[in-house]
Amino acid sequence: MAEISEMMQRIGKQARKASRQLSWVDGDAKNRALTAMADTIIINRESLQTANKKDLDAAKERGLSDAMVDRLRLTDAVIEGMAEGIRQIVALPDPVGEMSDLRRRPNGLQIGMMRVPLGVIGIIYESRPNVTADAAALCVKSGNAVILRGGSEAFHSNRAIAACLADGLATADLPAEAVQFIDTTDRAAVGALITCDDHVDVIIPRGGKGLIARITEESRIPVIKHLDGICHTYIDRYAEMEMADNLAFNGKMQRTGVCNATETLLVHQEIAAEFLPRIAKRLVDGSCELRGCAQTQSIVGGGITIREATEEDWKTEYLASILSVRVVDSLQQAMDHIEEYSSRHTEVIVTENHRRAMRFLRGVDSSSVMVNASSRFSDGFEYGLGAEMGISTDKLHVRGPVGLEGLTSQKWVVFGDGQLRG
Amino acid sequence: MAEISEMMQRIGKQARKASRQLSWVDGDAKNRALTAMADTIIINRESLQTANKKDLDAAKERGLSDAMVDRLRLTDAVIEGMAEGIRQIVALPDPVGEMSDLRRRPNGLQIGMMRVPLGVIGIIYESRPNVTADAAALCVKSGNAVILRGGSEAFHSNRAIAACLADGLATADLPAEAVQFIDTTDRAAVGALITCDDHVDVIIPRGGKGLIARITEESRIPVIKHLDGICHTYIDRYAEMEMADNLAFNGKMQRTGVCNATETLLVHQEIAAEFLPRIAKRLVDGSCELRGCAQTQSIVGGGITIREATEEDWKTEYLASILSVRVVDSLQQAMDHIEEYSSRHTEVIVTENHRRAMRFLRGVDSSSVMVNASSRFSDGFEYGLGAEMGISTDKLHVRGPVGLEGLTSQKWVVFGDGQLRG
Repeated sequence: MAEISEMMQRIGKQARKASRQLSWVDGDAKNRALTAMADTIIINRESLQTANKKDLDAAKERGLSDAMVDRLRLTDAVIEGMAEGIRQIVALPDPVGEMSDLRRRPNGLQIGMMRVPLGVIGIIYESRPNVTADAAALCVKSGNAVILRGGSEAFHSNRAIAACLADGLATADLPAEAVQFIDTTDRAAVGALITCDDHVDVIIPRGGKGLIARITEESRIPVIKHLDGICHTYIDRYAEMEMADNLAFNGKMQRTGVCNATETLLVHQEIAAEFLPRIAKRLVDGSCELRGCAQTQSIVGGGITIREATEEDWKTEYLASILSVRVVDSLQQAMDHIEEYSSRHTEVIVTENHRRAMRFLRGVDSSSVMVNASSRFSDGFEYGLGAEMGISTDKLHVRGPVGLEGLTSQKWVVFGDGQLRG
Repeated sequence: MAEISEMMQRIGKQARKASRQLSWVDGDAKNRALTAMADTIIINRESLQTANKKDLDAAKERGLSDAMVDRLRLTDAVIEGMAEGIRQIVALPDPVGEMSDLRRRPNGLQIGMMRVPLGVIGIIYESRPNVTADAAALCVKSGNAVILRGGSEAFHSNRAIAACLADGLATADLPAEAVQFIDTTDRAAVGALITCDDHVDVIIPRGGKGLIARITEESRIPVIKHLDGICHTYIDRYAEMEMADNLAFNGKMQRTGVCNATETLLVHQEIAAEFLPRIAKRLVDGSCELRGCAQTQSIVGGGITIREATEEDWKTEYLASILSVRVVDSLQQAMDHIEEYSSRHTEVIVTENHRRAMRFLRGVDSSSVMVNASSRFSDGFEYGLGAEMGISTDKLHVRGPVGLEGLTSQKWVVFGDGQLRG
């Protein structure tokens, strides 16, 4: 324990020092480093695959499912994809140093904000090894140093990728310690990282809900995260029928295992008799299981059986072809349902009525609120951020899709010519 | 303990409910409530002073100093000042609901941000009773519900003021529970408030460093705060002598007991022989005690004795007529000193050289960085925010002076006409 803690202090200090330099270098230097990272990954393809083989062998030995072994595999295509992802980040504008809202005060002082990096970011992930390259590149572009802690099942792959990234930094004369990999699978390292508050400014966990909940609970450092994606699509009484049908189907079925998929459909009672039977048929034909309130059950006929939705269903992120359906008697009741059960990720209203659209938009307290669009659009790429580190459902600091700007803060800048306070 | 915890759950739930309503009411309704609050305070002047007398009597009984008793006193002028402060907040624009950065994506979706309240804010303060009115008015204007926990020595005064504020809300048909006062002096209530994470979104402590450090350590809710104001003024080798002299003197001496006063003066060695003797004389003539590095001691002559500055001095927020002074051999050394000892509040460079000004501005990691201005300008009113809740030296969420905007967050808004994800 003491050794792990010492190691983390050393890594943290190095990261802090590297972050100071990275915070003010020009975008050109960061882009040279990112390009060198991408090149190094391509050049080292074989050694990455050799390291990866160790993880694959261990996974098979431990009896992981074929699907999970596949997720670990660094194929040629995955390696080229990592390099390409980094090159796309090169193409994004540098957010750091941007000055905004410079206003002149009556005494002649010019006062505004300058965008600055957060400092040192700790990323804890249990996902595919390519997250190593992706997350590190976003941090470097936004001027942050990063400490990476990947899942133990991808340990050798992650370590080999991180070494390529550090090489790339050194090639561009930037400190290699701006990307550091925690070189142990000891679980104590996670505890040491999330309590290293002297040197780490923010923790970003990427992975399952269990991991994220545990880290949030135990971290002494602010965490950027979302836990659940219990997203609602509400079909208002003034919805256009064809559009409602398409948005409900697309929101649920376009991809089901993702956080921005619709999990609950709310339908205004005035439109339910017309809308529910057709969407139910389409969903069931698409192999979607429906769980509904009593009204839903009675309205949907045509030989479609709908299981009764329980209290538990309204609280569940299915991440599967299952949809809970409730008939509501008003826009207010839809908003009350969302207030009670939503995870504050994304909610959609489908309506042709402007006043009701704006009321929903103002009144619903989620990180994304949409009018007449599929919940599946809630995503950094679709929002035009160019890249995404994740989604935040918190209200403090960053909310919704987290792009480069979400990895920065601002400071006040003041330009004077000798003003004194009187 | 269980009773206190139950009480806090009840207060928190009521606050959450009130915050939902307050989050979307028009600015007019909030302004009517604020105006009614100010009126109610003026109308109830006598009952406020009766309540205040209980606190004053208790303070005298407990032997508090005359200065501290004076700080507690609700004179006519203090009461009128509270009402006037609320009326000034009425005059500020409503930040809530503002939409920005609405950009059109290639598929026709229009995506941007809408400003929203944080929700429920817990304020823990040990300052003068007028903070009750001031802080609550800022929260209401920004659409937040607030839970107030004042110092026990002002308990009766705070309770009476909070009752006026809740009355004002009710007069304007807004929920009185948007401003709630914790009606006990039991210390356990603070612990219950800062762990009430289901219902409270952010904690703002206002008071001494001890209070703030303890709350930050124990809170399970994000805290907006600053601990120290160890501000630096750096006189560059290219400083204009007269301006340097005035800014150093004003930064230190215009008011000494405040967080944005300069505590350490850094002087480039090339200008030290000319600059140090004159500023030292002026400061000492103004009854300022100087503590300097060895070079400072040897350069300043003229019968002025300067105590040697210790490591402890560089780390100290004096909040008094004391200044530590160090000669540095370069801009880089000045920035390194700031990196090591600053509390990240406010730093100033005095120079005529543009490149060096910009390097300081980019490289110094504090919430406010100034060129050729007095550190004393670091303040929400001076920055044009119209009102100030405090100063944040954190990088997450809000940084520097915290005005109405700092009490809000944003959500993404998406306007479509039926777009599906393909």
